[in-house]
Formats: sequence, structure tokens, C-alpha cells
Amino acid sequence: MTAQLSKKGEAWSARFSEPVSDLVKRYTASVFFDKRLAQFDIEGSLAHAEMLAHQNIISAADYAEIQRGMAQIKGEIDAGRFEWLLDLEDVHLNIEKRLTELVGDAGKRLHTGRSRNDQVATDIRLYMRAAVDDILGLLRDLRTALVDLAEQHADTILPGFTHMQVAQPITFGHHVLAYVEMFGRDAERMADARKRINRLPLGAAALAGTTFPIDRLRVAKTLGFDDVCRNSLDAVSDRDFAIEFCAAAALVMTHVSRMSEELVIWMSPRVGFIDIADRFCTGSSIMPQKKNPDVPELARGKTGRVNGHLIALLTLMKGQPLAYNKDNQEDKEPLFDTVDTLTDTLRIFADMARGISVKPEAMRAAALQGYATATDLADYLVKKGLPFRDAHEAVAHAVRTCVDRNCDLSDLSLDELRVYSPLIEDDIFGVLTLEGSVAARDHIGGTAPNQVRLAIAHLRKELS
Amino acid sequence: MTAQLSKKGEAWSARFSEPVSDLVKRYTASVFFDKRLAQFDIEGSLAHAEMLAHQNIISAADYAEIQRGMAQIKGEIDAGRFEWLLDLEDVHLNIEKRLTELVGDAGKRLHTGRSRNDQVATDIRLYMRAAVDDILGLLRDLRTALVDLAEQHADTILPGFTHMQVAQPITFGHHVLAYVEMFGRDAERMADARKRINRLPLGAAALAGTTFPIDRLRVAKTLGFDDVCRNSLDAVSDRDFAIEFCAAAALVMTHVSRMSEELVIWMSPRVGFIDIADRFCTGSSIMPQKKNPDVPELARGKTGRVNGHLIALLTLMKGQPLAYNKDNQEDKEPLFDTVDTLTDTLRIFADMARGISVKPEAMRAAALQGYATATDLADYLVKKGLPFRDAHEAVAHAVRTCVDRNCDLSDLSLDELRVYSPLIEDDIFGVLTLEGSVAARDHIGGTAPNQVRLAIAHLRKELS
Amino acid sequence: MTAQLSKKGEAWSARFSEPVSDLVKRYTASVFFDKRLAQFDIEGSLAHAEMLAHQNIISAADYAEIQRGMAQIKGEIDAGRFEWLLDLEDVHLNIEKRLTELVGDAGKRLHTGRSRNDQVATDIRLYMRAAVDDILGLLRDLRTALVDLAEQHADTILPGFTHMQVAQPITFGHHVLAYVEMFGRDAERMADARKRINRLPLGAAALAGTTFPIDRLRVAKTLGFDDVCRNSLDAVSDRDFAIEFCAAAALVMTHVSRMSEELVIWMSPRVGFIDIADRFCTGSSIMPQKKNPDVPELARGKTGRVNGHLIALLTLMKGQPLAYNKDNQEDKEPLFDTVDTLTDTLRIFADMARGISVKPEAMRAAALQGYATATDLADYLVKKGLPFRDAHEAVAHAVRTCVDRNCDLSDLSLDELRVYSPLIEDDIFGVLTLEGSVAARDHIGGTAPNQVRLAIAHLRKELS
Amino acid sequence: MTAQLSKKGEAWSARFSEPVSDLVKRYTASVFFDKRLAQFDIEGSLAHAEMLAHQNIISAADYAEIQRGMAQIKGEIDAGRFEWLLDLEDVHLNIEKRLTELVGDAGKRLHTGRSRNDQVATDIRLYMRAAVDDILGLLRDLRTALVDLAEQHADTILPGFTHMQVAQPITFGHHVLAYVEMFGRDAERMADARKRINRLPLGAAALAGTTFPIDRLRVAKTLGFDDVCRNSLDAVSDRDFAIEFCAAAALVMTHVSRMSEELVIWMSPRVGFIDIADRFCTGSSIMPQKKNPDVPELARGKTGRVNGHLIALLTLMKGQPLAYNKDNQEDKEPLFDTVDTLTDTLRIFADMARGISVKPEAMRAAALQGYATATDLADYLVKKGLPFRDAHEAVAHAVRTCVDRNCDLSDLSLDELRVYSPLIEDDIFGVLTLEGSVAARDHIGGTAPNQVRLAIAHLRKELS
Repeated sequence: MTAQLSKKGEAWSARFSEPVSDLVKRYTASVFFDKRLAQFDIEGSLAHAEMLAHQNIISAADYAEIQRGMAQIKGEIDAGRFEWLLDLEDVHLNIEKRLTELVGDAGKRLHTGRSRNDQVATDIRLYMRAAVDDILGLLRDLRTALVDLAEQHADTILPGFTHMQVAQPITFGHHVLAYVEMFGRDAERMADARKRINRLPLGAAALAGTTFPIDRLRVAKTLGFDDVCRNSLDAVSDRDFAIEFCAAAALVMTHVSRMSEELVIWMSPRVGFIDIADRFCTGSSIMPQKKNPDVPELARGKTGRVNGHLIALLTLMKGQPLAYNKDNQEDKEPLFDTVDTLTDTLRIFADMARGISVKPEAMRAAALQGYATATDLADYLVKKGLPFRDAHEAVAHAVRTCVDRNCDLSDLSLDELRVYSPLIEDDIFGVLTLEGSVAARDHIGGTAPNQVRLAIAHLRKELS
Repeated sequence: MTAQLSKKGEAWSARFSEPVSDLVKRYTASVFFDKRLAQFDIEGSLAHAEMLAHQNIISAADYAEIQRGMAQIKGEIDAGRFEWLLDLEDVHLNIEKRLTELVGDAGKRLHTGRSRNDQVATDIRLYMRAAVDDILGLLRDLRTALVDLAEQHADTILPGFTHMQVAQPITFGHHVLAYVEMFGRDAERMADARKRINRLPLGAAALAGTTFPIDRLRVAKTLGFDDVCRNSLDAVSDRDFAIEFCAAAALVMTHVSRMSEELVIWMSPRVGFIDIADRFCTGSSIMPQKKNPDVPELARGKTGRVNGHLIALLTLMKGQPLAYNKDNQEDKEPLFDTVDTLTDTLRIFADMARGISVKPEAMRAAALQGYATATDLADYLVKKGLPFRDAHEAVAHAVRTCVDRNCDLSDLSLDELRVYSPLIEDDIFGVLTLEGSVAARDHIGGTAPNQVRLAIAHLRKELS
Repeated sequence: MTAQLSKKGEAWSARFSEPVSDLVKRYTASVFFDKRLAQFDIEGSLAHAEMLAHQNIISAADYAEIQRGMAQIKGEIDAGRFEWLLDLEDVHLNIEKRLTELVGDAGKRLHTGRSRNDQVATDIRLYMRAAVDDILGLLRDLRTALVDLAEQHADTILPGFTHMQVAQPITFGHHVLAYVEMFGRDAERMADARKRINRLPLGAAALAGTTFPIDRLRVAKTLGFDDVCRNSLDAVSDRDFAIEFCAAAALVMTHVSRMSEELVIWMSPRVGFIDIADRFCTGSSIMPQKKNPDVPELARGKTGRVNGHLIALLTLMKGQPLAYNKDNQEDKEPLFDTVDTLTDTLRIFADMARGISVKPEAMRAAALQGYATATDLADYLVKKGLPFRDAHEAVAHAVRTCVDRNCDLSDLSLDELRVYSPLIEDDIFGVLTLEGSVAARDHIGGTAPNQVRLAIAHLRKELS
Repeated sequence: MTAQLSKKGEAWSARFSEPVSDLVKRYTASVFFDKRLAQFDIEGSLAHAEMLAHQNIISAADYAEIQRGMAQIKGEIDAGRFEWLLDLEDVHLNIEKRLTELVGDAGKRLHTGRSRNDQVATDIRLYMRAAVDDILGLLRDLRTALVDLAEQHADTILPGFTHMQVAQPITFGHHVLAYVEMFGRDAERMADARKRINRLPLGAAALAGTTFPIDRLRVAKTLGFDDVCRNSLDAVSDRDFAIEFCAAAALVMTHVSRMSEELVIWMSPRVGFIDIADRFCTGSSIMPQKKNPDVPELARGKTGRVNGHLIALLTLMKGQPLAYNKDNQEDKEPLFDTVDTLTDTLRIFADMARGISVKPEAMRAAALQGYATATDLADYLVKKGLPFRDAHEAVAHAVRTCVDRNCDLSDLSLDELRVYSPLIEDDIFGVLTLEGSVAARDHIGGTAPNQVRLAIAHLRKELS
């Protein structure tokens, strides 16, 4: 009877009059991508078997045999000696068949009170939980690296851009902390997704539960789940958690793409604000002078991949009737690739953040171009009593003159400035410096070096 | 000077040498879709003005004037008498210009210490918070309606399907509760999204904060925000909350699409499990006999719309450098349409759930077809000591015989059944009934009527 | 009996026992967005009626009445006097009901041999054909404007970038022509899509054809269709043409987004390659010095919208069983908005292309930075006999020295250059000039001014 | 010097001061997925070398050496003996390095006048062209198999559904031909895409063309391209063809999903219209009676994957400045997986179409349910002179009576029928038969068996 499981299709063979064709086998098999679930499949099976034994559904001897068999299988897999067979379709049947080879009838009893539907769902959730925990750690690493960078440049001034036009002077530390905020929200979302991942579907069996006197809460506790899925039909057909994870991942990659865009622009010679260490760059096969920021470019491109996986999963689930349909097997590749992409990208970005060297002079030179302190002049006039909209209009006239004369606001004399408003006095020149401008934005969330340092202190606490 | 704001473009006109073309005006204006933000814009402005006055940045008299003007504007908008001008581009400038008409210099002082960038971000968040609160209420209504339906049918048996093939008997109440679970997770996700919506960007000004001594926490408190956005560059450029909301909405619609698919199939004459009240259906212009389940079909189709909006927003934010870029104006239409689609769909589904009439005989007849209790026979054999995989094999042989003879398992005599296993005894026939089958799945999440009633009690408490 | 059509629902009312609720009416109605199909609905109905009369299915007198009624309706719609009723659900029933008011029984005979399913499909195709023809004209305008710009700058040198790093000198005319190629492919795709749009579904009736002796080829000829849809089930359920159009539109917007990105970067002060006329820009509510490239930014953002609509339609059609389902009503809004977005964007871009002013000195200065002619040095060595890979290596060493010394390759003396290869002679300095570099790339598709002019001549012919 | 290429990074190493890290190597390498381009890379390189020799850019002897080396490399790859090195990053450098090992300086001369940018673009286009040609063949196979199936069932009657409600009787042959039309349009789109794939980018070099006197038209002719890309910047950065292909593929999969949905529903026991051969189905691990239509379910699920890849590529290209950026490397995996998915799915569907067995009695029984001939009764009344809308109303009343009495229209006596219209005479009963109904829809595209056979004859010619 052991032979029964030795080919895919034989798990249900008695009902069928012709074998599955080779093309179909290949088309429907998942073992070549789902074998990464092996450790979770074993973990889930052991918890299930422990419960079956505790409930006297199988004997203690059977449980011991299953433990022994699984230990050996785990060893074989870890050592790369396990033989994965396409004929056995997926990771679950491969392991179960090997177990039955090793321990006989005890192995055949393992599947009592469960189905592949709830087994698969359990394995994926165990996998996802581990993946999210990894990602939370990597987000913390990346944020720490960025906080370090921000701290070094709490006083370094560069132009803040809106619409890629010079807006107001900001500090580089402040700019970097914007990304720390983004990745912080990503971590929140991952933690929220984890709550919904960490519920146990096992016990739902095929779709309706089982006739065996199982104890689902016991299995949940063994496996560290917070709760059990409360409805068996939902338990086997729910892939919300995969979609929610991919949506959170798409936001991580969106942030990565924004940071990448800036790194690429900043490293472009016309801007020249930073350099990225050689180990993150490559050269050209034809242009010997090139040093290309490959890592941020590639990361920016990978945004598409994750957005695509999100759409793949949403499309997959659209209009699916209950309960389990084979369509769901298609959840794995998008999910696995999203996990891999996120994991690799976050790891490399944390490393790269430490390989960014800043060119403060280029930043400063740029900040002196583009009338970055025009707002400060307007604010100055408001404080002298002019309504904001009138102050704005007066400064616009002054800027227009400077554009025509190709000079900066601070190049105008006091008399020239007073043409635009008699409220201007000689304290204006302090206001028009870069340092004066950034220091004046001294409230929660503002760009003043003082506030950057407070924000860093706050974040250090959060990240510790 | 009041005239200054009377045309879009004049807010910055001194800097420009030619007017914006009409085509450009239309292309860049948002007033025809963002005017739905009016009440939130006024609410935000009043909180800002209150703080400006408290901090002595504007006078108490100015604040009183702003209050008076805004009250009048609100009245005009509510009465449909407010004149929205394309020339003024967006809801914010329209309101500010009218305020200045009404209260003069006080109106021009309102914009002190803020920018359109943080103003827009604040308005959207206020709008989103209200929308999420509505949606949470609608999800509660829908879930309540479904729990009511489930309660009526806690004992009604229909075939549970996997792969659209008959799998095992289930109760209709149990099936309906699967959707209650899905919409329950949706409510959790909306509540999680709300946490990240409910942070105040105001005070970020254009991108760097402001030189005025503002009190952001005061404004946050006035407006009911949980916290302030901690980095000004992030505050004005962050649209995570819109994307997160649309992702949560896409999952709601995915669930709606699955329920719709089932309703449409169940109402198809070959299945005939349910009827939907006429008021949710339409007829045909050519086929007088038709009664079409328009509402679930249309709802299923609207899934595409929300998935599309999610992609629109993700594409929008991909690779955007900091801080604010005009691209962001494109966030509104996808967001507004997602809110409308979700709101309308949930409202109509809660109503429609009460218009579903169930046909228990058709369900029962279907459950008797397709060997729904084969698993029960296998479980029976396992309980008699056969390993699961061997029991499965034995039952498969029995089913094959029945398929060939076009009869049900329960139509076989005891002797005929014993051909497949000598373990079978005459207590088997109780096991093969539909009632026996569902009642036996009596554990948390199982389909037994008993469990359905426990789940309903649990949900009633949650929903109260 | 005329009253029969006076409320939606009454077209099939005899079969129904309760009226459609107001919420359902609003949810399922399309008249507020599909009324833009009115002219096409009338055009299609007239062609159908002409055929019915020609086939003696209706009388000549009836046809004359229908013509008279439709002329009046068209007049009412054009004059804005037509009263659109939500109760009549869609554009088709609104027009038919008004026709019956105007001409009585002849109006009731119009629907003979057709159904709303094939009627709607016909109207959309007529609308789409007109939209594609508009878009083809707009693509031609935009390409012409870009060719004009390219011609003005066939000799203007700027650095060509790869990875946003300086690669090799190119001409601005050549760069602009890259977009002319992209929009040329877009036109090809639109023309290909038009072939599949321009097939007549009318005659498919509800799904199976009709029992009346209709002549579909006659109707096709009257309406200018190339062919008839060859299968009635496919005819009423096919929305491929809408998806194909949106996919082609997504590529147009992708090209727009790339051009926009470049315009925004080029107009950023650190780069300063171009200026965009004031009429396409806006200022800031807080920073009086700002001039923001709003149009390209907004266009870049609108890419998301069109990608989203494409996904909306693909999601809509996924897994729909034949033939027509109500889901399909959701095809219109994404389609209409895609048409509007494309039409407005192309029109404004053609105009804006004429508002771009180029700053050749800034371009030249940038081209002199970044070792743009390093490839020319390598090619020089190869022509002297060095294998390419060895030449590449030699030049890389020379560049490294220049980086260390902060000078250009042409700043090295002949002796210094010969350190890297003794093959270098004094003819090298001509090779290292920008003009020499671009002129040397003189083959089809190369950046030499000569080739740019040839390409322009070729395009002028194509566009004439 | 051969050692120069022996590690990735060394192609440009002289410019760099630190090696690329292992994580970066893995992150940026493509060799493990792009090695499927090997044969096309060799083919492209040989055509390039032939031209270089013909133009006297390299010697005839060098060309002979390159030919010899490439022949050996091709042999090594075919035999699985080629050693792919991660250190060499991609398929191109792996092959070039091996060539240089084998033939020395001639190998180093191969890259003269080209760059990896145009080389990669050429390889992908050669690959895509071959893939499209395969797919065109597979679409032809599938259409042929469906035409065969349609021919067997040109007279088999089943209910035509709209809104999953019985609409009118149709023939199964007619239904199947709807899919033949869909896949026919897919073939048209693939052929259209092929025109834009089949243009040669080689000669664009890095982005600007080359200083060598190359002959691009010669290379195009050698490689069978229809034309050359007309602008070098566009040539290296264009990925339109990949997106256009994926969009066409998404439509193929949309059609597959619709057909799959119908197969799954038809095979559901409540419908029971067809059976699918066992070799395309699988059983259940827990329910021995199950026979699940795995192949159509999985194919339906794979729709998501292809939609996702389309979005991945659109996101990738959004906002990319010219010319080549590393982001583009991300084009390959979505593209390759789309090709594989399409190829496998079409192959398996052509095979499965031959494994569908039809159950005409079940179809007929279903057609007799649901008043499928109500339209025929209305048409009958119209032919007797009643306006269509009035006829529709009369039939609706008759149907309502039948619904109340639970009988069919043909079960009413002539007197009973005449209650609804005195125009009804005893020739009505022929009209109300299924055969009469389908035979009467006898025009191009109609469901009459006669028309189905004409359509088949037409398609046979097209497919031959």
C-alpha cells in the first residue's frame, strides 16, 4: 500500500480511469516552488500529530513514529538529499509519501482529520509569519542606518525641492528622516498584517471541519498562533492575508522607488549631491568613464514586480466561489517572489545607506540658487503686519526683478528691497541666510537642526 | 488687492509674464472634483485660525472675522449658492478668495504659517477619516444582515463545493458566516488604516515647516487627530494612507465579488438555490421571461474599478522625488470614486441580504447528489482502525462502483459496502445521512448547526 | 402603451412584482455617463431602421417616422433641451422612449430584430472609432510639433545620459526624435486597434441572432464598418477592443510620463537645459519665487489613471461566462475617462512642445562634464588596432587619472595620454571634441546632425 | 588580458576602487534567468561579426575565429556543459568571456561598434519573435481543436445564458465558435505585435550610435528583421514591444479564463453539461469521490499572473528618463514567465479541447427550462403586426402566468395563449420548439446549425 502514494494521482487513483498526462502533471504541479514550505509543513504536521495523539485519535506510538520519521526527513532536506518528485505534485505529498516509506501505517494516519486545503493554508501562514518577522527586522536595520546618516547631517543644508524646483532650504538630516517615517509606517502595516496572518486554519479540513474530536486551540497554541480561523469555509479559501501582505510590500517598494529616484538624481553629475560607494555600482561595457547607480535603479524597477504580484493575487481571487478552488495554487509564486524581493532590497538598502557619501558644498551651492529664502522674506513681512497674501505678492515682485538681473534676493541692497515694501529693515539680511532660514523652522516636524536632533532621539528610543 | 485672488494664477502672478491658457486651466484645475472637500477645508481652516490666534500670530479680531466669513461660506455652499470658479483652480483658493471678499485682510492672514501642500493633505485626511467611519458602519450593517440570514438557516443543508464539485454537506448558515468573517477582517483593516489616516500634516507648510511659532498639537487636538506627522517633507508628500485605504477597499470588493459570483450561480435555474427580490433585479429588452441579478453582477464588475484605482495610486507615487509634486493632485478622483463605490455597494448589499429567499428543497436535492458523504464513510473506517490513506482508497473504489451504477453510496447494501471493507457494519447508514454528516463536524469553525449557533452568538456580541 | 417605457423597469414590468428601489436605480443606471453615446445611438438606430425597411420588416412609412423623430431628438440633445431620466436607466431607453412619444408605433417597431446587448456594443464601437480617429490626429500634431523642435536643434549638443550619468554627447534634435518614434508606434497601435473596433455587432440581438430576415452587411456598409462580428455570442460579450485600446493608451501615457520626467528634470535649476512657457506652469501659494512645471507633472501622474483603467477592464472580463452579463456596463467609465485623458494630454503636449525654449549653453556645459567622449577615445584606439576590450581598459585608466586630477580627457597632454596607449597620436584632440563626437555617429539612427536631418525629412513625408 | 573578463566588475574595473559585494552581485545579476537568451545572443553576435568583417572593421580571420568559438560555445550550452558564472553577471558577458578564452583577441573585437544596451535589446527581440511565432502556432492548434468540437455539435442544443439566466436556445457548436473568434483576434494582435518586435536595435550602441562605419540594414537582413529602429536613443530604451506583447497575452488569458469558468460550471453536477477527460483532472486528498477540473481552474488563476506581469512592465517604464537605465533589466522575468504561461496553457487547452465530452440530454433538458423560446413568441407577434414593445409586454404577461403555474409556454393551450394576444394561431407551436427557435436565427453570426456549418467552413479555410 505504500506504493499507493508513489505517484501523483494515486492518492485518488481508484476513482479515475486514466492517468494524468505529463504536460498536465507539469502544469498542475507546485513542488518546484512550494518546497520552500517544507520546514513549515513538517512543523504543522508535528503539531497536528501531537494533538491527534493527545485526543486519542492516533496512538502515542504512532505519534512517536511520526516524530522519528519527520526528524529524518528534515535531516534529508537540510542535507539536500531529499528526492523531490514531480509525480507527487507538491511539497505535502512528497513529505507524506516519504514519511509512509519510513514509518508505515503511522504515516498514513497523519492525514486523519485534516485535508490538503487546510494543511496548505497553515503552511503558508507559518511561512508568511516568519517572512514578516524577518522583514520587520530588516526595516529596523534600514531605519537605523538612515537615522545614523541623518545624525551625521543634521546641520547640512541643501535645497528642499517641490516640483523639482528649489523651494526652501532644508537640512539633509531632515530629508533622510522623511524616509525613516515612511519605513516606520511600513513596519506598522506589516505588524498589522501579521495579526491576520497569525490565525490557524488547520481543522477546517477540506471545507467543513472534520468528524474527529480535534482540539484546534491546542494546535494553535503549539504553533504560536494567536487564534483559530472561526469558519472552516473561510479558513480554506481565505487569501486576504497574502493580498494584504503584498499591498504592504507594494508600499515598501514605493518608498524604495522614491528614495532610489532621489539617489539617482543626486548622483547625476548635474546635481552631484552624493556619491554611492563603488560596491553598489557598475560600469559600462562601452563607456569606460561610467559609474552607474545600479542598485537604486534596479530597486526602482522592482517596484513594478511587486505591484504586479499584488494585481496577480487580486485578479486570482476575484469572483471565486467558495470554498477552495485550484486557482488558489497560483498564490504562491507571487507571494514568494514578493518576500524575496522585499528581503533582498531592504537588506541591500540598509547596507547601501552606509555607503552614501554626502557632498555638502554642492548641496550648499545649490541652496544658494533659486531664491530658496523668498518664503522667509514673505514671513518677515507678515510678522511686520502685512497680510500673508500681500506679503507674497510683494516678494514675487522682488524675485521677478532678481530673475531679470540674474541675482539673489540677498544681493539686493536695503534700498532696493524697500522698493517692494517699506516694512523691510536691515535685520532682513540675517533672515535671508540659509542657516537663519532652517533654524527658524523650529517646531515638531520642522527642518531646524534642533528639531532633527529631537526627532533622532525619539527614533533611537523607538528603534532600540 | 482683493482682486489679486480673483483669477487662478494671480496668487503668484507677479512672477509670471503670460497667463495660463484655457486648456491648461482646465487640465490642471481640480475644483470640479475636489469641492467635495469644502466642509473639511473649512473645518481645517478654522482650527488653524484658532491656533494662530491663540499663539498671537493673528489677532482675536481677525479670528472672529474668519469665523464669521466661514460661517457664511458654509451656508452658501450648503444652500448651493456658492459660485465655484474654474479660474480659481481648486476648492481651497475658491474658499479663500470668497473669505477675503467677505472679511478683507483677516482673510488674507488665514494662510499664515501654512501652504496649500499641507492644507490639501489635511483636508483629504479629514475626508478619509469620515469616509472610513461611514464604511465601518456599513460593514457592521452588512454583517448584521448576514448573521440574521445565517441564523434563519443554521440547519438548512446544501452541498459544500470545492472546485465547484460536491464535496461535503454543509449548512447554509455556516456558508453565510464565511462572508461575515471576510467582512469582519475588512473592518479590522479599515480600523488599522484609520490609525495612519488620523495624523495631522498641517504645520508642514510647503515642505519644511514654518517660521511662525505654531502649535501643531493644539490643531491636532481641535481636529481630533491622534498625532501629528513627525516630518514635514513626509507630511506633504505622503499618500500611503490613500493607497492603504484603496488596498483595503480592493479586498472588500474582492469579497463582494465572491459573494456576487455565488449569488448569480445560486440564482441560475440549473442551480436554483435562492431567489433575489425583484427590486434588485432587472428584465430584458428582448426576452420577456428574464429576471437578471443585476446588482450582484454590477457589484462583481465594480471590483475592477477599485483594483484599477489602487494601481492608479501606486503608479502615481512610484519614483516621485520629495517633496510635493503636482502629480499628487491625481490622487483625488481614484480615492473619491473608491469611497463612493464602496459606500454604495455595502449599503445595497446589506439591503439585498434581506431580499434573499432560500430554497431549502433545491439545496437538499443537490446535497444528495455527488457522494457528499464519502468523507464520512472514510472517517468511519479510520475510526474503526484503518489508516486514513487506506480508508480513502477503499471509499474511492466504492464511489467508482456507484458512478458506474449511477447510484448513491447509501443505495448500496451492507453486503455491497463490505466488499470495500469488512470493517463496515450496519451503523454506517446513520453516518451516510446529510444530518449525521453536518452534525458530526462539531468543533470551533465546523459546519454543525450547533457550531453555527455558537458562532452567531459570538458575532452578535461583537456587532452589538 | 406609450406610458410603458416611461419608467425604467417598465420595459419588462409584467414579469416583476415589485419595483426597483431608488438606491438600486441609482446603482444600476448608466444614463449619467453613457449619454455621451447619444449621437452614436441615433446613428446606429437609423442604420438599423433603414435596413429593416429595406428588408420589409418595417414599412417605409415607419422608417420615415423614425427618421423624423430622431432628427427632432438630435436637435433637442444638441440644444441641451433633452430631458434625461434616471428612471429610464440608460441613453438607449431614454432615446427610444422619447421616439415613441414623438412617433408612436413606429418607435415601438425600431427595436425589432435587435437587443440592448448588440445595440450597446454597436454604440460603443462607433464612439471608439471616432475617438481613435481623433487620437490619431492628435498624435500627428504632437509628432509634427516635436519634429519642428528637433529641426531647430539638429546641431544643439547636450550630454546623452544612461543611468542619469553622462554617457556620450548627443544632439537635442536626436533626443527629441526618440519621442517622435515612440508616438509613431502609438499611432500604429491605435490604427491596429481600430481594425478590431470597426466590426459590427448589430444583428447579434440578445446573444443568438434574430428570427427576422435582417441584412447585417447592409448595416455595416451604412455605418462604415469593415466587417460584421462573425459570432453572435462573441459579438455581445466581446470587450477586447476596449481593453486593447486602453493598453495602447497606457503606452501613450508611458511615453508621456517619460517625456514629462525629462522636462521636469531639464527645467530643474541644477540642470537648467530648458524653460517651459509660463502658460503651462503655475506658482506657489507660499513661495513667491516658484515656477512649477505643472503640466508635465500632472501628465506624469495621469499615467496611473490609465494603467488603472486597463486593470479595471481586465479584471472586469476575467472569468465572465458567456454571453452578456451586467458586469459589462462597468466598461464605460474607464473607457471614457481614458479617451478624455488621452485627448486632453495629447492636445496640451502638442501645444507645450511649441512652448519649450532650449538653453544651448547649459547643455554644452553639461556635455563637457563627465568624460562624454571617453568612448570616442576607445573607438580611436580600436581603429588603430587594439581589441575593443583592451581599448576599453586603457581608457578606463585614463579616466581614473582625470577623476583624481579633476580634469577632462582633453586636458591631458599628448604625452600624458600616451601613457595609456602608445597608439595615441596628435589627431586625438579632434576626436575628443563634442562636435567631432556627434558627427562621427553618422549611420541610420545615429546622433550625427546629418542623420537627424535625414530622419526629419523622412518623418515629414510620413506626417504629411 | 583574458583574465580581465573573468569576474563581473572587471569589464570596467580600472575606474573602480572597490569590488562589488556578493549581495550586490546576486541582486544585480541576471544570468540565472537570462541564459535562456543564449542562442539568440550567439545568433545576434554572429550577424554583427559578419557585418563587421564585411565592412572591414574586423578582419575575415577574426570573423572566422568568432564563428569557430561560437560554434563550440553553442555545443557546450546544448550539451549542458557550459559553466555559467554569477560573477559575469549576465548571459552576454558569460558568452563573450568564454569566446575570448577560446579565440583570444578576435573575441575581444566582437564588441566593436556595439554595447550591451543594444545587444540586450536585440537578443530579447529575437527571443520574442520566436515566442510569438510559437504562440501563433499554438493558437492555430487550439482554434482547430475547437472547430472540430463545434463541428461535432453543430446541432446540439443547449440554453444560451445571459446573466446566467436562460435566454434563448443556442447550439453548442455556435457557443464553441465564440471562443474561436476570441482566439482569432488574439492571433491578429500577436501578428500586429510581431511587426513592432521585428525591428533591429543593434547599431544604437550605448545610446547614440557608433563611430564605426557599420551597416545596420545588412545585420537586419541577416537576422530577418523587417526594419531597423530609426533612433538610437529610442532603440536602447524602448520596451513597448514587451508591454504590447504582455497586453495581448493578458487578453489571451482573459479568454482562457472565460472558457475555464464555463468549463468548471458546465462540469459542476448541478449543470452537468460536459465531462472533462480524467487526465486533465485530479482528485482530493480527503474526499474520494471528487473529480476536480484542475486544469481550467489553474488556467483561470494564471490570468492573474499575466495581468500582474503587464502591470509590472508598465510600472517599470513609467517615468523613466532616456536612455537606458538599469531598471530595464527587470523586463525579463515578467516577459519570460508570460511566454511560458501562454505557451503551456495554449498547448494544454488544445489537448483538453479534445478531451471534452458533451452530454446532449442534460443540455436539452436545461434548454427546456426557463422559457427559452419566449423571444420567439414575441417575434411571432411582431411578424403578425404588433409593435415590438407591445409584443414584448404581451409575452411577459404570458411568462408570468407560466411562472405562477410552474409550466412552460408550450404547455399553454392555444386558447390560453390567445388571452395574451388574439394574433396567436396554431402555427405557434412549431415556433416554440427548440429546433424551430435555433433554425430561425439563420443569418451571418446567428446560431442556426446552417450558419454554424458555414462559419466552420470559413474558419477551416482561414486555419489551413
